[in-house]
Amino acid sequence: MRAIDLIERKRDGGELSSQEIRWLVQGFVNGTIPDYQMSAFLMAVYFRGMTEQETVALTQAMAESGEKIDLSRIGGVKVDKHSTGGVGDTVTLALVPVVASAGLVMAKLSGRALGHTGGTIDKFEAIPGVRTELSLEEIRSQAARVGAVIADHTADVVPADRLIYELRDVTGTVPSLPLIAASVLSKKLAGGADAIVLDVKCGDGAFMREWAEAERLATTLVRVGNRLGKKFSALITAMDEPLGRMAGNALEVRQAVEVLQGRGPADLTEVTLALGAELLVLAGEAPAPAAARACLIRLVESGRAWEKFREVVAAQGGDLRAVDNPELLPQASTAVEILSPASGYVQGLAARNIGLAAGLLGAGREVKGQAVDPGAGVELLAKVGYEVRRGQPLARLHTNRKERIPEAERLIAAAFHIGPDRPEPRPLILGRVA
Amino acid sequence: MRAIDLIERKRDGGELSSQEIRWLVQGFVNGTIPDYQMSAFLMAVYFRGMTEQETVALTQAMAESGEKIDLSRIGGVKVDKHSTGGVGDTVTLALVPVVASAGLVMAKLSGRALGHTGGTIDKFEAIPGVRTELSLEEIRSQAARVGAVIADHTADVVPADRLIYELRDVTGTVPSLPLIAASVLSKKLAGGADAIVLDVKCGDGAFMREWAEAERLATTLVRVGNRLGKKFSALITAMDEPLGRMAGNALEVRQAVEVLQGRGPADLTEVTLALGAELLVLAGEAPAPAAARACLIRLVESGRAWEKFREVVAAQGGDLRAVDNPELLPQASTAVEILSPASGYVQGLAARNIGLAAGLLGAGREVKGQAVDPGAGVELLAKVGYEVRRGQPLARLHTNRKERIPEAERLIAAAFHIGPDRPEPRPLILGRVA
Repeated sequence: MRAIDLIERKRDGGELSSQEIRWLVQGFVNGTIPDYQMSAFLMAVYFRGMTEQETVALTQAMAESGEKIDLSRIGGVKVDKHSTGGVGDTVTLALVPVVASAGLVMAKLSGRALGHTGGTIDKFEAIPGVRTELSLEEIRSQAARVGAVIADHTADVVPADRLIYELRDVTGTVPSLPLIAASVLSKKLAGGADAIVLDVKCGDGAFMREWAEAERLATTLVRVGNRLGKKFSALITAMDEPLGRMAGNALEVRQAVEVLQGRGPADLTEVTLALGAELLVLAGEAPAPAAARACLIRLVESGRAWEKFREVVAAQGGDLRAVDNPELLPQASTAVEILSPASGYVQGLAARNIGLAAGLLGAGREVKGQAVDPGAGVELLAKVGYEVRRGQPLARLHTNRKERIPEAERLIAAAFHIGPDRPEPRPLILGRVA
Repeated sequence: MRAIDLIERKRDGGELSSQEIRWLVQGFVNGTIPDYQMSAFLMAVYFRGMTEQETVALTQAMAESGEKIDLSRIGGVKVDKHSTGGVGDTVTLALVPVVASAGLVMAKLSGRALGHTGGTIDKFEAIPGVRTELSLEEIRSQAARVGAVIADHTADVVPADRLIYELRDVTGTVPSLPLIAASVLSKKLAGGADAIVLDVKCGDGAFMREWAEAERLATTLVRVGNRLGKKFSALITAMDEPLGRMAGNALEVRQAVEVLQGRGPADLTEVTLALGAELLVLAGEAPAPAAARACLIRLVESGRAWEKFREVVAAQGGDLRAVDNPELLPQASTAVEILSPASGYVQGLAARNIGLAAGLLGAGREVKGQAVDPGAGVELLAKVGYEVRRGQPLARLHTNRKERIPEAERLIAAAFHIGPDRPEPRPLILGRVA
C-alpha cells in the first residue's frame, strides 16, 4: 500500500476500504506517513467527502490508535455527552452530577478553551485544588466509586485525533463533515460509554451557524455513531446568544452551582435537563424524555444532584468551601460595567463577541499551553428579550488585564442590539435526531 | 499574512494576490511555511485551479526563488525549448546545434530520466567525457563562445520548482494545469531566453494522453508565457508511438547524430525542424515557418549543424571520436531480438510500454540519484505502418541485465499491434498555439 495511491483515489472521488483507512491512520500516528501526505489527503477529503462506511472506518481506526477507557466492569449504564461548543456552555459541569445522581455512570473527558469558546477543564480547574489530569486507572476507579468524573483528555486516548486535529487546524481542513464526525465519535468510542447524547450548537456563537449545517452534522453523527454499536441521540440547540449569564471560568462554575441548586438561568437549566433526559431514555432508565426530565428535576430539588457535584469536586481534590461559598472562587481585580446606550429591548446578543471578549479579558488563551485567568470573564446583566433603560448596565467585565478593557468593551457593545420592539421568544431546543 | 488564511481562501474558490503568492513561495523555500501547509494549498489548487493572473504570479515567484541565467550581454536572440516528455524524444540533442548553427543562442537546461521517459542529460552524458554539471558562469561563457549549451538543471536556478515538484510528486498534486504551467514557465523565465518553443506531447507515451488536455496545456503555457514578457509558441505533437527508432541513452545519441547528418528517421527529423522553425520565426530570423524550415534544412545539408554539435560536445569535454564513430559509444553486453508473432501491418506501437521496457533494461532509474546504463535500451526495427512477416524481428533489446529481459519482452510484445490492414498515416504535428 502506498499513501500516494490512496490520496489520488480520494482526490478522484473514489472510496477507500476500511483496511486502507486504518493503514493510513496507523501510519500517520507512528510517523511512517508524513504530515504533508496526510494534509493532502485531508484536503482531498474536504473536497470529496467520505461515504458513511469510510467515516465509520476512520472513526474506528482513530479510536483504536490509543488506549480505551474500559468501564465494562462497572455496574450501571455508562453515558457520555459531547457539545460542539458554544459560549457560556457550562452544561457539562451540571449534567455530569445530575445524571450520576440518577444512577448513570458518566466519566467525561473534556477539553480546554481555544478560540472564542471556553473549555470545561479550564472551568472545573477554577475551583481551587481540582485536579483534572487523571490517569486511566484514576478515571476508572472514580467512575466506579462516585459514578462521575470530569477529566482532561489524556494523550493516551485517541492520539490520532489530537495529531489529525492539530494538522487540520493549520491546513484549512477543519470544516469537513466526515472529519468532524470521526473526531467527535472516535473520542466517544474510546470513552467507554454505552449511550451518548450530542449537543449540536447552531447559531452565531457556534461552529455551525446555519440550521442546515447543524442538522446535517447531527444526522451524520447519529447515523455513524449508531453503526459503531453505541446508542446515540442528538439535540440541536440554539447558540445565538450565550447560554446563561456568564462567560468565564470561575463565573461559569458559579452558574453551574446555581443550576445544580435549582436556581440557575432558565436556558442553561433547560439544555442541561433536556440532554440529561436524552441520556436517561437512551439508557433505558425512563420511557420518554418528559418522564426523564421530571425525574431529573426531582434529583435537583432533593439536593442529590448538588451533593453528587460536591462528591466529584472532593474526589478530584477540590476545595469544597469554594463551591459552598462561591465568593471564595477566584475573582479578578477589576470589574467594569458597560451601560446601555439606549432604551428599548435587547433584540440580539451576539454570542461570538461575548466569547471573544471573555477570552481577551483573560478567560481564554491565544496559544496552546497558556494558562487561563480563572477569575476573568463577562457577566451578562441583560439578555435577549430584556427591557433596558439608557444608562442601565448591560454587562460586567471581570479582568486582571486593564489594558484589554477598551477592546472588550467594543466587542460587547457591538454584541448588543437594542431596539424599540420586544423580540419574539425563540426556541432553545431546535431539533432532535435519534 | 498567515498561510492558513491563504489556504482557506483558495479552498473556498477565492483569488490570491501576486504579493500573497510570492510570500507563500518564498516562505516555503526558506522553510518558514511547512510542507504540510504547502501540500494542503497545492491540493486546494488542484480542485480550485488558478486564474491566469495567479499563474503568472506563481511563475514569477518561483523564477525569482533562485539565480537566473543572465544572457543579456550575449549578442543574438536567445532561445529555449521545453518538451512535456515522450519516448525516443531526443529532439533537444539535435535541435540545440541546429538552431545555434542558424545564429541563435540556445543555453538549454535539461533533466534526467524518471518514469517511462528518458532525460536529455542522461542521453548527452552517454558520450564519454561529456560534463553537464556546469556552473552558471560556465553556461554563460559557453553560450557566448559556442552559442549552444546542454546543461543539467542546477540547484541554484528555480529551487522553488524542485521543492514544490518533490512535494507534488508524493501528494497527488502533479496533474494540475496551473502548477504544471508554473513549473515549466518558471524554469524558462529563469533560463534567460527571449523566445521559447514548447513541444506539448499528446498520446499514449505522453503525460497528456488526450487532445483536449494537451491543447488546454499548450494554450495555458503560451498565454501565461506571453504575459511574462517573453515570446512563446507551442506545437502539439503526436506521442502515440515513440519518436524515431531508439529508446535509450547512447542509442538516442546515435539517432540524434543521424538527424544532424540528414539521415535521421522522418518523424524525429520533422519534429526537430518544426520546433526549430518556430524558434527562427519567434526570433524574427525568418518570416514564416516554411522559410525557416528550408533554412534549417540547408544548415543540416551543409554540415554546419553537425559541426556545431561537435563544437558543443567538445566544449563540454566529450570525446569526439565517439560521435564521429558511434560504434565507440557505450554498448550493452547482450542484444536480443523480438520476433513478430504474425504477418501483417504494424497498426499501433504503444510508446509507454517501450519507454518502460527501455527503463527496465537499464536506460532509466527506479529511484532518484541512481546511475543509468548508457548502453541499454530498445531499438525498434518496425514502426507503425510497416509491413512485417511472421518471425521477422520487430525490436532489438540492449541490456546488461539479462534477468530483466523476459519482462521487457512482454512489455514490447504487448506494445505492438499487428493486423491485416495498412493503417492510415497519422499526422505528427497535431496543432500549433501561438
